[in-house]
Formats: sequence, C-alpha cells, structure tokens
Amino acid sequence: MQSKRPCESRTIMTDMVLPSETNPLNNLFGGELLARMDRAASIAAGRHSRHITVTASVNHVAFNQSVPLGSVLTVEAAVSRAFRTSMEVYIDVWMEDRNTGDRSKANEAIYTFVAVDERGRPTEVPPLEPETDLEKERYDAALRRKQLSLVLAGKMKPNDATELKALFMGKQD
Amino acid sequence: MQSKRPCESRTIMTDMVLPSETNPLNNLFGGELLARMDRAASIAAGRHSRHITVTASVNHVAFNQSVPLGSVLTVEAAVSRAFRTSMEVYIDVWMEDRNTGDRSKANEAIYTFVAVDERGRPTEVPPLEPETDLEKERYDAALRRKQLSLVLAGKMKPNDATELKALFMGKQD
Amino acid sequence: MQSKRPCESRTIMTDMVLPSETNPLNNLFGGELLARMDRAASIAAGRHSRHITVTASVNHVAFNQSVPLGSVLTVEAAVSRAFRTSMEVYIDVWMEDRNTGDRSKANEAIYTFVAVDERGRPTEVPPLEPETDLEKERYDAALRRKQLSLVLAGKMKPNDATELKALFMGKQD
Amino acid sequence: MQSKRPCESRTIMTDMVLPSETNPLNNLFGGELLARMDRAASIAAGRHSRHITVTASVNHVAFNQSVPLGSVLTVEAAVSRAFRTSMEVYIDVWMEDRNTGDRSKANEAIYTFVAVDERGRPTEVPPLEPETDLEKERYDAALRRKQLSLVLAGKMKPNDATELKALFMGKQD
Amino acid sequence: MQSKRPCESRTIMTDMVLPSETNPLNNLFGGELLARMDRAASIAAGRHSRHITVTASVNHVAFNQSVPLGSVLTVEAAVSRAFRTSMEVYIDVWMEDRNTGDRSKANEAIYTFVAVDERGRPTEVPPLEPETDLEKERYDAALRRKQLSLVLAGKMKPNDATELKALFMGKQD
Amino acid sequence: MQSKRPCESRTIMTDMVLPSETNPLNNLFGGELLARMDRAASIAAGRHSRHITVTASVNHVAFNQSVPLGSVLTVEAAVSRAFRTSMEVYIDVWMEDRNTGDRSKANEAIYTFVAVDERGRPTEVPPLEPETDLEKERYDAALRRKQLSLVLAGKMKPNDATELKALFMGKQD
Repeated sequence: MQSKRPCESRTIMTDMVLPSETNPLNNLFGGELLARMDRAASIAAGRHSRHITVTASVNHVAFNQSVPLGSVLTVEAAVSRAFRTSMEVYIDVWMEDRNTGDRSKANEAIYTFVAVDERGRPTEVPPLEPETDLEKERYDAALRRKQLSLVLAGKMKPNDATELKALFMGKQD
Repeated sequence: MQSKRPCESRTIMTDMVLPSETNPLNNLFGGELLARMDRAASIAAGRHSRHITVTASVNHVAFNQSVPLGSVLTVEAAVSRAFRTSMEVYIDVWMEDRNTGDRSKANEAIYTFVAVDERGRPTEVPPLEPETDLEKERYDAALRRKQLSLVLAGKMKPNDATELKALFMGKQD
Repeated sequence: MQSKRPCESRTIMTDMVLPSETNPLNNLFGGELLARMDRAASIAAGRHSRHITVTASVNHVAFNQSVPLGSVLTVEAAVSRAFRTSMEVYIDVWMEDRNTGDRSKANEAIYTFVAVDERGRPTEVPPLEPETDLEKERYDAALRRKQLSLVLAGKMKPNDATELKALFMGKQD
Repeated sequence: MQSKRPCESRTIMTDMVLPSETNPLNNLFGGELLARMDRAASIAAGRHSRHITVTASVNHVAFNQSVPLGSVLTVEAAVSRAFRTSMEVYIDVWMEDRNTGDRSKANEAIYTFVAVDERGRPTEVPPLEPETDLEKERYDAALRRKQLSLVLAGKMKPNDATELKALFMGKQD
Repeated sequence: MQSKRPCESRTIMTDMVLPSETNPLNNLFGGELLARMDRAASIAAGRHSRHITVTASVNHVAFNQSVPLGSVLTVEAAVSRAFRTSMEVYIDVWMEDRNTGDRSKANEAIYTFVAVDERGRPTEVPPLEPETDLEKERYDAALRRKQLSLVLAGKMKPNDATELKALFMGKQD
Repeated sequence: MQSKRPCESRTIMTDMVLPSETNPLNNLFGGELLARMDRAASIAAGRHSRHITVTASVNHVAFNQSVPLGSVLTVEAAVSRAFRTSMEVYIDVWMEDRNTGDRSKANEAIYTFVAVDERGRPTEVPPLEPETDLEKERYDAALRRKQLSLVLAGKMKPNDATELKALFMGKQD
C-alpha cells in the first residue's frame, strides 16, 4: 500500500465557542473540546485510510488553558503515525482572541483510531511518511506512546517496552 | 489603517454532515449549509476587522450539488473586498466522498458583514489588498456586486451603476 | 395539473430566539435566520407540490434589522410562483417585542425549490394562481427574478432578459 | 385592564419532525412534543399578558396518534381563559402527511402559565373574551379544570368543587 | 410472566441545566423538564418490559419550583404499576444547589407508557410487585389515576369509577 | 476540612444513545462519550467540593466496546481521591441492550478536576475517605497516576516517582 504524508490527512476545524458549550465561568467545557477534537481527528483518520474509522483511545489530555465564550477555536488534526490497522492522530488546538486576534496554543491531544470495513472489522491502512522535523519527532514518539498504552492495558510486559524503560531508568544502563 | 491580505482572514471549517442536518433524501439541508457558511464567514470578517461583525446580506446562492449524509464538508471563507465599514466575504465549499476521497466543489457564496462596536454602531475596517489572480478577480467583481445590491435596494439609480449597466447593454456604447 | 393558491402553501413558523442562536451582541445570527427560513419555505414548497423538495437557490437577502435574544420571531412562507418543476417561495419575517408586543418586519427573502421524486429527479408541480394584489405583484416579479438568476448563472444572454433589460435602460427604448 | 380575544394570542408553530427527535419506531418522542407545545403555549401566554410567563402546570395529555419522522407538525396555541395572574392555554396539534397532504389531529393539550415580573413575582393579566362557539366552550370548561386542579393539589375541598361534583354525581341532586 | 420490582426499572438521570434550556428568568423551561422526564421514564418502562415503549399519556404536572440555570437536576423514574400492556411510571425530580449542595424536591410527574413490538402493536408486560411503603402507596393510587383517565377520556362512566367516586362524595355513602 | 466519602459525590447519568450522536456504523461517537463522561464527572467533583470545578485532565481512555444506537447508557462517576485543590474522578460506563436487558461494561475513564472560586482561582477541597475495597484500590492507584501525570508533564523527575519506578523496574532493586 502506498504511503501517505501527514499533510494529506491534515484537517482544520475552525468554529466559535457558543453559550451552550460553556461552564459557569463562561469557559468551554472540557468535554466539548474532547468531542470537537474527536470529530476533527476522525476526519483526519478517514482521509488517511479512506475507511470508516472508530476511536480506539485517547491519550492523556491536560487542560491548562481555559477557552472563553466567543473565542475562535481552531482544531488541527493530522495522522502522526500509522500502524497495521490503527492510526495515531495528533491534534493541535489554537484559540484566538476575538478582539486582539492574539492566537495561542489552547491544547494538544493524541487520539488513536482503527480503520474498519462496513461490518466493523479492522482493515489495513497505508503507512505514514513524515516530512517536517515536527512530523518526524511526533512519528518517533508515537512508538513510545504505543508501548506505554500496551503496558497500561496489560498487553505488554514493562520489561519489553524498551523505549519506555529507558525513560524511567535513565543513563544507568 | 494598514491593509490586510485575504490569507489573513482565511477561515477553514471542516466537519461531517450529521443525521440531524439532512432532508428526506439524506442530503444536507440548504439552510444548514447557509448557517455553516455564515459562521465561517463571520469568523473571517472578524479576523479582518478585529471587531464584532454582523451579517448584512447574502448574495444569490445556488445549490447545484447535493451533499450526502456522512460527507466531509469544508467551508473556506476569506474577505474578498473591504469597504468603509463593511466587508464582502467569498466562501468556497468543498465536499469529500468518505470512501474514495474524491473532492468536488459543492458550493460558492458571497456574504457581506458590517463591523460594529459594542453598541452595534458601524466602525471602520482596514482595506483589503488582494494577492493572487483569483483574489484580484473577486476583488474587482465585488464592486459590481455592491452596485447591483444598491440598485436592487433602491439606494442607487440603475444609470449610476456604471459597471452593471455595461453588463446589460454590452458593447453598444 | 390543477392550479393551487398561495394560501394553500402558506406556512407559519413562530418561535422564540434562544441563547444558543445569538451572536456576541445578543442578536440572532444571520445564518440561523437563513436556516429557519429554509425550513419554513421547504414546508411551503412541499405543501404546493406534495413532493420532496430541495433548495435550489436563495435570492439576495439583506439583514437590515437585528433580532434580539428573547424576541418572538414569525417566519411566514408561501409559494409565489410555480414554474415547471421549480417553485419560488416568498418569505416574510416578523419580530415581536416580548414586552410591548410591537410587531415589525424583520426580513424578507426569496428561496427557490425544486420538487423531486424519491430518486432525486425533478418532477412537475401544479401552477400557482395568485389571488390578492400582493400575491399578484410577487407573481409578476418572480419572472424578472428568474431572468436575473439565469443571466447571473450564464444560462441566459442579458439581451434576452427583456424584463430585466428594461429595468436598467429605462424608458429610452 | 382591557380584555383580549383568543385570536390576539393565537400562535402557530409549524415545523418538520427531525431524526434527532424520534424513537426507535421512527416516531416523534412524546417528550419532544411536550416541549414544542410548551414553547408555543408560552408565546401565546406572553402575547396575552405582555409579561414573562412561566409554565405553572400541564393538564393530562394523551398521545393517541404517533407522528412519523418527516411529518409536518403544526402546533396551534391560544389563551382559553385568563384568571387573575394565570392563563389557561389550549393547544391543538395537527400533523400532515408529507406526500398526500392529509391533515389529521395529532394531539390536544392544556397548559397553564403564570405571568411574572422581572423578579418572578406573579402579576395581573387582562381578562379573556371568547368569540367563537369553540372558544366559549373551552372558556367554560376551563373553570371545571381549574377546580379539578385545585382539588388534586389539596387546595380545594371536593365538596366545594361544584362543577366537578356534578360531573361525578350526575343528575341525582 | 414473572413479576418485577420497581427497583428493577429505577432509572436515574442526573445532569446540569444548560443555558440553551432556560427562559428569560434563567430558569429551566417547563417543556424541557417534561422532555427529560419523558426520556427517563421511557427508559424505566423499557427496563420493566424489555420492549420498545411509547408514551401513552402524561398526568397533570404542576411546576411549583423554578430550577435555576446551573442547577444539578436528578430525574428518578420507576414503574409504579403495570397493567396488561401499559405501565405507569412515577417520576421524582430533585434539584441541587451547586454551591450549598442543598437538595430539594423540584417536581413529581406520572407518565404512562405502552409496550409495543417492532410494528407498533401493544404487547404484554410483566406485573409489578411493589416492595416499600411508598411503592405500595403509589401502586394503589395508580388504579384511581387509571379510572380518572378513563373517565376523562369518556371510556368509563363516572358511576363505574368506584375509587374515584368515593373521593368526591366522601363518607356520605 | 471534614473528609467526604465517594458515595457522597456518586453521580449517575442514564440516557439513550440518539441518532445525532452516532457514526456511520450507528455506534456512539467516542467524542460524545467523552463529553457525557465529562459532564457526569464534573457534577461529581462539584458534589465533593461544593465549588465550580474545571476539567484539568483526562487519563488515557480506551474504547474497546462499541455502543450501538438506541442503547441505554449509564455513566457513573465518583471522586476517587482528593488532593489539595484537585480531585480525581473515576468513571464507570455501562451499556444495556434495550431488548435483552443485558448489561455490560462499556468503558472506564479517569478525569481530574480542579475546584475554583468565582474568579477561577484554585481553592481547597475536602479529603476523600474511601470505604469499600474497590474505592480503596482506586484511591491507592490514584497516587501512581498522579506521579505518571507529573512525569509526563515534565513536572516530576522519573527518579522521584517512586511508585511508578517500581512498576517498570520490577523486583530487581
């Protein structure tokens, strides 16, 4: 199967933050942001695989930045690494102040999707070929994340997660 | 006021077509598309003016292409010409077949927005400086459209709409 | 096919303006109004044709009146002229101040719909027989609008748009 | 305070039944119909009283008719009797088959609203003057309904509910 | 068919009151509460019958307590009596002040559902066996409510509604 | 500050899966589930802290089970550990087949919330006192999760994450 580049799946979803999506402090609910990111990431995974895709997992997501009512929010998603039937999608979220136009990073998240056929059975996807430095960095890190995910799910022994083990044991080996 | 380029207001809103937005033929309602375009165009006008913007008018919109449930729809809006307090926003809509990835033009539309202050009073906006050929073409056509709009609203005499008159009278003058 | 009168397709949709439909000035989004008008007009076209109808086009719409949060909005749509498979629907929008009951014209718009069968193929509709003076006036103007629409779409030569040409050239011929 | 007629508060809300409002049999959820009727009735009560109105109660509502997806539903509400600060609103619901145009009664309901000022305190409303036979009949029945409501709420002794008592004891007194 | 207990159908639906559900006084619309209760009660009826269920009727509902924006609302529904193909569902609604945690009764309502098969035909449901005192009390009262409902629908003569007649005539017989 | 038990914050949100929330395979979108869990967890955190709470992070979430349209979904959230101003909330999700009533685990997730005052500044919360074995187990694991979160965020050195280090190095020390 012919490989694809991240730019071929890049998906940009810009929209306003509306009153029905905000908490009592008038900031976007975390859950609404998670849902928007899922929609954008699912489109990116669909663009890479040309199959129906279903969310397999969401990596740890931190909400360090509150997003006020009326902000313009841009969710940008692109496949960061493809495995046999699954894809990691990296999502960058930018918020823009309506008045000043100041644009700042609002969030980052990593979702994993599986490509499936009409009956829901996993199906193969093309490999990903990263181009820019950032894309390559994310591509490499995706392997470590996959190992961590397998360890946490009890599907890989910590000792076999070579990349991860190095992280916790440092230079001593 | 310093002029801005169309790319500074360009707004991309990609999203799926959901069941609650479709008619009995399972195609996107025209009205839902008009609403999505308004949101994207309003963000573009806000990016150009850095003020609250309100929809002033929508040009004639034709729906030649039906957009099936489950399509990925991309609405792309950018300011095409700025007048004193108003902006014309040109919107291109692309649809993408989920399975084949085929991308085709689903629609085009032209909205006009007015920039206002917190009390709703019109306020000045920066001029627009078009760069590409397409941007220049749209910039020029915007004047004809403004004249047509003024004529139709009874605010300009057909005889004064020089650009428009030429269109209907041809070479004879 | 037996002709029908405008009153047979008249559709009245009264509803409140809710917080999730308003912009930062607490007025109804233009796009939301366009979507409401599309729903009402689509019902009117369905009542005239007794077929599924799809939005074919929307005429130029101006938003001269802002509609505040909490207003009661009445959208009134009726077929204003029927062609072979298409119908022009004229829409009047009234807003009502919740406290004083003052009712004022909030907008007007003209949508065109095509009647289609279950496979989406255009299908014939009954002629329209206008009754009141206003209905007759709108019926006559519908032809001019159709010509303008065909000219703008490049499907009719400006010289053949006799009604329209007269509009721009005045009495001189 | 000058009395008003039912036609002055009559509110017509026509809209389609959408997929997000239907149960597994593809019929409108009872609860969605209750919510639509509440919105229409609340507008009618507002038109009669020119105050904010809050739902005070809903009479027994039976759902004898299922309303299929894609139907055109018309909710028609008008004040049927005014008391000191409260109003009874009578609601007729009609459904229309999209293809045949057959129109049938889908439901009836009776809601009661209280007019309140900005702080939520009950405030007086104009009396209602019924005109047609149907309006007069509903006006008279409203008193019996009010008594039943007070009895059920434990705020009136059954023996004092003269109208109601007659209903259950028949001619024997 | 084996009887079931109320606890087997008990359904708890806790959620916040959002801006898009509130009236101009920033309290939950009565109609929104009716719709939430319908969803919860429908799940309870489905748990008792294990069939699709459709709303047959809603008893008189009074709204004595306003529910402010941002409240946490708990809707608790359980089958209170089963007849041959229908079930009465009793619903208790609690509201909780977000800051103090004070919990108070916001409402009570009684809905009736009919169990149906895939074609919409009524189908038998298991009997209900009440356990607690409150459940028994509600079980007994359900019969009186059913009689009242039949009388009001003209399907039972007032004289035959023995339970009900006693209520209005008191000790005199 | 007096400690609280998990049962004091337990929040149950049962609701159906509606058409507008499902993907092309007619299963619930992962993002919608994330949003529902956020709302339930946020209520649980509010019940524990009696303050406004904002989502601080979401742990890794796997979606192993698809949730079909029409399922009854129960989201159950309770605070699993309280730190100074933050709370970990553990969420169990159950799905129920509408016909058979079979209930199975659909998902688990762990969200972290911070309690804030009206200006958004973090504010102290009561400690949590777990009661059952499961609550105690989750309480203990919460510390490991917090360390992992700090390490991944670069706010704690891997060597200081004693609990975590043991996990990856095994018995060898």
